[in-house]
Amino acid sequence: MLAEIITIGDELLIGQTIDTNSAWIGEQLSLIGIRVHQISSITDNEKHIIKALDEASNRVQLVIMTGGLGPTKDDITKHTLCKYFNTELVLNIEKLEQLKERYQKFNVPFTKVNQDQALLPKSCLILKNTRGTASGMWFERNKVVFISLPGVPYEMKGILTDEGFPQLVKHFETPNVIHKTIRTVGVPESILAQTIENWESGLIKHHLKLAYLPSPGFVRLRISGIDRDGKLAPVIEQEANKLTHLIGEHIYGSEKETLEFVIGKLLTEKKQTISLAESCTGGNIAKRLTSTPGCSAYFMGGIVSYANEVKLSILKVSEIDLETNGAVSKEVVEQMASNVRLLLKTDFSIATSGVAGPTGGTEEKPVGTVWIAVSSANRTISQKLLLPFNNRERNISVASSYALNLFRKEFLI
Amino acid sequence: MLAEIITIGDELLIGQTIDTNSAWIGEQLSLIGIRVHQISSITDNEKHIIKALDEASNRVQLVIMTGGLGPTKDDITKHTLCKYFNTELVLNIEKLEQLKERYQKFNVPFTKVNQDQALLPKSCLILKNTRGTASGMWFERNKVVFISLPGVPYEMKGILTDEGFPQLVKHFETPNVIHKTIRTVGVPESILAQTIENWESGLIKHHLKLAYLPSPGFVRLRISGIDRDGKLAPVIEQEANKLTHLIGEHIYGSEKETLEFVIGKLLTEKKQTISLAESCTGGNIAKRLTSTPGCSAYFMGGIVSYANEVKLSILKVSEIDLETNGAVSKEVVEQMASNVRLLLKTDFSIATSGVAGPTGGTEEKPVGTVWIAVSSANRTISQKLLLPFNNRERNISVASSYALNLFRKEFLI
Repeated sequence: MLAEIITIGDELLIGQTIDTNSAWIGEQLSLIGIRVHQISSITDNEKHIIKALDEASNRVQLVIMTGGLGPTKDDITKHTLCKYFNTELVLNIEKLEQLKERYQKFNVPFTKVNQDQALLPKSCLILKNTRGTASGMWFERNKVVFISLPGVPYEMKGILTDEGFPQLVKHFETPNVIHKTIRTVGVPESILAQTIENWESGLIKHHLKLAYLPSPGFVRLRISGIDRDGKLAPVIEQEANKLTHLIGEHIYGSEKETLEFVIGKLLTEKKQTISLAESCTGGNIAKRLTSTPGCSAYFMGGIVSYANEVKLSILKVSEIDLETNGAVSKEVVEQMASNVRLLLKTDFSIATSGVAGPTGGTEEKPVGTVWIAVSSANRTISQKLLLPFNNRERNISVASSYALNLFRKEFLI
Repeated sequence: MLAEIITIGDELLIGQTIDTNSAWIGEQLSLIGIRVHQISSITDNEKHIIKALDEASNRVQLVIMTGGLGPTKDDITKHTLCKYFNTELVLNIEKLEQLKERYQKFNVPFTKVNQDQALLPKSCLILKNTRGTASGMWFERNKVVFISLPGVPYEMKGILTDEGFPQLVKHFETPNVIHKTIRTVGVPESILAQTIENWESGLIKHHLKLAYLPSPGFVRLRISGIDRDGKLAPVIEQEANKLTHLIGEHIYGSEKETLEFVIGKLLTEKKQTISLAESCTGGNIAKRLTSTPGCSAYFMGGIVSYANEVKLSILKVSEIDLETNGAVSKEVVEQMASNVRLLLKTDFSIATSGVAGPTGGTEEKPVGTVWIAVSSANRTISQKLLLPFNNRERNISVASSYALNLFRKEFLI
């Protein structure tokens, strides 16, 4: 069972808006066993919309489109759909009453433009929108289902969740697709691929597929297959276990878990706390730890010791060590880690000091040289990174991930 | 002159990855006068790739595709392109040497999989990738240009910026589009639109267009037009000046300048320094200040005082004030600001304390309540924000921007 998604709007094509609707719809459809074959973003133009609908409906049984249903004049989807399905707009009294009530409630004047939103195609089934003014619409032709939705993500998600997906599950006989995502950190895709090559080749006999999903510092591995007899879940689990056996040291989590979320979960379970002393990562690790709601249970805070003066005055790094070895050194980063832990009275700490670039590198310490350290009451451990990026943002991001991972490996597992 | 973008990868269709490449490419192409007609995201499948290339090249003169060029086996783009352009993979010695050097430099074993990245289609022009291992490729057929790029945004952007766009400008006779971007902070799009309505209507007589580009806390206003006679630049400057006259208080910069970049530039010029005391923003302001290369000239560092203990022990906030008023209060945030300035011996400081959510709100201090303060030797000023978002990330991001902007307005202009 295949579907296509068509997102409509000039703003998508000139890069004003990133299309996040398609990814959300694609993910939700895959969970109910519908596979997205293609996503197309097209202009607000009648001919273009009709051509895209024709092409998509020749390839798949379900076409979901978003955008072009708002009250303003550049939104022409509704009129185009009437033409395409050979129907006409009629005033929907129930919808009109809802709209009036809604505008009254929010004390907004009810204009002609708003009233036009109660004009809906005669031949469609209406999908209710409890979060906004534009209705969803369900059309059928030659056994193909077409669903049209407003482009506002919050409204689109509400309509599909409340009405669209339940009706799709009823309407189509869909296969049950199962996915399992394994998250790795700190190892390049090519090394992973080589390590798991034999295992990967064996997946075919269970009709399973593997996808590599890399991002800076990380690679996600996704195993997926169609469950025809209700017996696939344990097979996928078994294969995931084999994978863990092969590359377990690189695996930090699964599914949607971020590294900072996993660390937060482990610290919360252990009722232990952490502090930070960041130089080259400049607050990025703190920002990532605080991105998780509930982090106040384990994250006490940190010192962003960007200037050497702050390393001396607040973190009490030895002036001699700083002068002799420089700020980007084992000695300094280890003192940063152990001193911030004592200063903020936490169980653990992480520290970073490096050359993020693009300038500031030397022959001895080129851009990408980063020292990371982690500390507990028992021991302080450090590691030197030589990151291959001549890019400040990337060096900061990857150094942060590696420092978090060093902490996880040394103290949480 | 029309283009299409094709992004390749199953991960896009099942929603594991949001396609951000297309929006970036669309925006950049529009800056060099090329309009994107359609964006398609398709599967890692030979037939599908070939069909998409056929369809797109029948509609437009430029097809840019991303994805499917990594070293692992689910990446089949390169083989498909050879088939499509009736050519074969040949070993590119120069590329092989570059790859070997790269892997040696970073001390990573050079495997068979890596070596295969030096196999490139015979008939294509190679677009160099200085940021990664997969090359870009430029093909031509029937006056249509096809560019294939790796899917990793950082590498894709590098290849297009260094090689792709300059060659496209040379290859196609594109109109000379002139843009001017004015950056505002802290005022909603609807209020801006109302304030500049008359000015905006006047743009049409110069054949100029205005685009509103909103992002959390910010709105960019882009004026653009096609320069047919070499006389448009001063006209755009004149209109930009009129705009500054109308909304100057909301404007902080132009073109690609971020708020933190502008602040850094002003601090550098004045030879003055800044420190931070962040609670609810949790390192986000520090991260943003350190994103600018050269920030060590003015950014000394900061205290992320996430826990109240850190506000007391390091920032020496009054325990009575903290108990009486709570951490999210005028008293506490002003002490955080003035104390961190003294502690880190800087000319200025910024402090934040608030309820980022999604939980932790009370009737008196709901989610989105944030106190921000800025301080100099002469005065400390604070402001209460009531942000309308029930979203942690958005509250942190907008509170950071507003705090930076309060500092800019109070002390730098």
